Amino acid sequence: MASQKAWAVVAGVGPGTGACVARRFAKTYAVALLARKPANFEPIVEEINAAGGKAIGISTDCSEGKSVKNAFEQLKKEMGGASLAAAIYNVGGRFVRKPFLELTEEEFESGWETNGRGAFHFSQAVLPLLLDKLNADPEYPPTLIFTSATAAMKGSALCASFAAGKFAMRAVAQSLAREFGPKGIHVTHAIIDGVIDIERTKDWKFDHPDAKIKPEAIADSYWYLHTQPRTCFTNEIDIRPYIEKW
Amino acid sequence: MASQKAWAVVAGVGPGTGACVARRFAKTYAVALLARKPANFEPIVEEINAAGGKAIGISTDCSEGKSVKNAFEQLKKEMGGASLAAAIYNVGGRFVRKPFLELTEEEFESGWETNGRGAFHFSQAVLPLLLDKLNADPEYPPTLIFTSATAAMKGSALCASFAAGKFAMRAVAQSLAREFGPKGIHVTHAIIDGVIDIERTKDWKFDHPDAKIKPEAIADSYWYLHTQPRTCFTNEIDIRPYIEKW
Amino acid sequence: MASQKAWAVVAGVGPGTGACVARRFAKTYAVALLARKPANFEPIVEEINAAGGKAIGISTDCSEGKSVKNAFEQLKKEMGGASLAAAIYNVGGRFVRKPFLELTEEEFESGWETNGRGAFHFSQAVLPLLLDKLNADPEYPPTLIFTSATAAMKGSALCASFAAGKFAMRAVAQSLAREFGPKGIHVTHAIIDGVIDIERTKDWKFDHPDAKIKPEAIADSYWYLHTQPRTCFTNEIDIRPYIEKW
Amino acid sequence: MASQKAWAVVAGVGPGTGACVARRFAKTYAVALLARKPANFEPIVEEINAAGGKAIGISTDCSEGKSVKNAFEQLKKEMGGASLAAAIYNVGGRFVRKPFLELTEEEFESGWETNGRGAFHFSQAVLPLLLDKLNADPEYPPTLIFTSATAAMKGSALCASFAAGKFAMRAVAQSLAREFGPKGIHVTHAIIDGVIDIERTKDWKFDHPDAKIKPEAIADSYWYLHTQPRTCFTNEIDIRPYIEKW
Repeated sequence: MASQKAWAVVAGVGPGTGACVARRFAKTYAVALLARKPANFEPIVEEINAAGGKAIGISTDCSEGKSVKNAFEQLKKEMGGASLAAAIYNVGGRFVRKPFLELTEEEFESGWETNGRGAFHFSQAVLPLLLDKLNADPEYPPTLIFTSATAAMKGSALCASFAAGKFAMRAVAQSLAREFGPKGIHVTHAIIDGVIDIERTKDWKFDHPDAKIKPEAIADSYWYLHTQPRTCFTNEIDIRPYIEKW
Repeated sequence: MASQKAWAVVAGVGPGTGACVARRFAKTYAVALLARKPANFEPIVEEINAAGGKAIGISTDCSEGKSVKNAFEQLKKEMGGASLAAAIYNVGGRFVRKPFLELTEEEFESGWETNGRGAFHFSQAVLPLLLDKLNADPEYPPTLIFTSATAAMKGSALCASFAAGKFAMRAVAQSLAREFGPKGIHVTHAIIDGVIDIERTKDWKFDHPDAKIKPEAIADSYWYLHTQPRTCFTNEIDIRPYIEKW
Repeated sequence: MASQKAWAVVAGVGPGTGACVARRFAKTYAVALLARKPANFEPIVEEINAAGGKAIGISTDCSEGKSVKNAFEQLKKEMGGASLAAAIYNVGGRFVRKPFLELTEEEFESGWETNGRGAFHFSQAVLPLLLDKLNADPEYPPTLIFTSATAAMKGSALCASFAAGKFAMRAVAQSLAREFGPKGIHVTHAIIDGVIDIERTKDWKFDHPDAKIKPEAIADSYWYLHTQPRTCFTNEIDIRPYIEKW
Repeated sequence: MASQKAWAVVAGVGPGTGACVARRFAKTYAVALLARKPANFEPIVEEINAAGGKAIGISTDCSEGKSVKNAFEQLKKEMGGASLAAAIYNVGGRFVRKPFLELTEEEFESGWETNGRGAFHFSQAVLPLLLDKLNADPEYPPTLIFTSATAAMKGSALCASFAAGKFAMRAVAQSLAREFGPKGIHVTHAIIDGVIDIERTKDWKFDHPDAKIKPEAIADSYWYLHTQPRTCFTNEIDIRPYIEKW
């Protein structure tokens, strides 16, 4: 029905990129925000609804298949017959930085749980909905974006866990782009290379102004990617502040 | 003066990407179009001026320093005191595909002339103007974009000349991004991976619709890159049709 | 004691690369062969011992920390006071190729279990021994080699599980090379790109002779890597038959 | 004739890598050393001949087609009916490091002249001889190795000229590997990442011993590459001291 908004789903919503992406996509779509802790999505859900948009939050642990399944059952009820236009996987997870020989198995696995297994469960849940969307003559190609990092390109010392996870995420994103791109789904691996400008990093000082990435600018980039027509897909993008060394 | 439009310059203007980029940037800026043959820029210059925009064409061979120097002397006169907001290097050059042992030196060098030497002369001409632009409190970061190709990432058999040129172009783009990015200039290497949908390729048939890249969509991507704030620069982007193998 | 041979350990020993690597390193070292099924290492253990070398086999599941721990306790007893000169992680694991939406969690995880978690446990077990080796004034730098694949570089359609695992393995190898290289340990990620010439592939026909990789040649390459002095470490190597497309 | 030695040719012979490669290959082959200045090859030619090997030097500027043509006419006379087993392109050329806007065209072009044009002329001269070698049932696959650098992988600030040249060299090496590999020629791009330990660098101090690459070790690696059978070609190799950051 024309009166029903399509939806976007954002997994991993805290005070930074996730919230800004939710706000940006909420200008056009109803948005579902997934995070483990309701405290992470509640303020932004309220803000969007208060501003006349439509948002819901669902407590979800993407690294657990059952939790993701439950979340999408709930989401589908909320959606009614509406379609899913975009899905952003932005779950941050732990960042463990320590000497390799001091890593516990649990610490090492944490990079995979978020960036590998979590990306798997989320992708398996959203791709059937994005494929359905193709039948609805969408304005923009259904879109799946993964928030990644420089660690997807380079395995630095002391970062084996995080790098293994982000490398794996890039592999999954490439594999999905090659399988689902020809069907019309736009899959992008977004390499965010720099410090995000949020409350937690406000005391991190740099010699230059604008040294941190504004999450609003990331959200704009994600929206732009979503609007690219299928004759012109970008499957990998890097985003960094002008002063970042790379 | 506020009443004076800033300029964009596009080198390499034929019926495809260059013309669309010129049209897109002409919505905001006066545009200067460089090509060796006036026949290549005249129709689009007329079209833009007829539509109420401002465009000029200058016959230029970017692989020759003297020709580039003359072109920019002429351009600066046209610009008066106005500033340069964006520069796009889109010169296509020859594409030589033949067994390596049959290549003449001239054929082998052709990839370099366009993608290496030409990129050098163009960059040396525009970067001082883009740096000046920083003093004018620009709405968007001054931008330099290089149109590249998959051949910048992979040296295929029979393509040594073109690949050598595009690899070199990528090196130049990276080096400039790292030198001029911290000053506030946005430099991007754009990997165009697919057949462009233009008159010359209209009989190239594919099994799927939308199998060729719409040059308008490339132009939109270039414009989007130009609008990214300096907290969020993209230094490399790939653009391909959804059905492209990669 | 000079009379005691140093050891090499090879995890993942079947009829192909693992067996050949074991034979090659057994020319200089005592070798410990790890595989889940004793049937996989028994023939080569017997062969090496019969030929005057020294080999033992230990049933090990590298994806389980406890199994690896038990294996290395047993190995250290066998080694007595001898040192570990080289460690090769060659565990193949499952190769799942199917549409992404048909993958079970277990199937998706299988790539990680072998190439991520298994590489982690093996590395944590061997690195302390390789570091000890540095005190023994070794003839060659202590060496850790990971057998990887083209899937570490490119995530192909239908191969999300395997690619995620191999990308992760590359991340781990890079991170270890950057942490332990400066201490004197030689870590290499070896990209094996082609079909291995073993019993299982003998009916795979190609238009050219020598179209499959001889595992003996891989073993020679690994031995060569081991002999590189610390002024000249190779941290990534690709190995493919001359006719392989890449 | 069995009594006639096969040849190897090394372009770019100074006191470092080139001399060591010449010495190493002279253990098996007669060697021809190319350099612009005879003073660069004379000592090593004398040394090899005095030690019972066979060496000649030919003054050659590889960036000029005519010079390369003359050199190989002379070389073929010297070779008589003997064959060419290996060719190493090791020409260093200038390394210009300066702000991009201060580069002259001549300075910018210097990276290309050595690494692009020079590699082209050398390759066109040696490949027909290496193809001939295939008919002589060679012990090792005929081999063409390019000495490259980290600048082939990353365009650093202030290094546009050198990076453009080395990127182009990598493109040429890949293109040749893909065209001539399937014919049986082994082509390798060797990324030398670090300071070479020669007279000129003897006062460059590092905190660690063995911080510079021993050129003898590079030569050993090149020899190893030459001995790889065609079932097991390495087309790209990185070589760096254990303490190098990468």
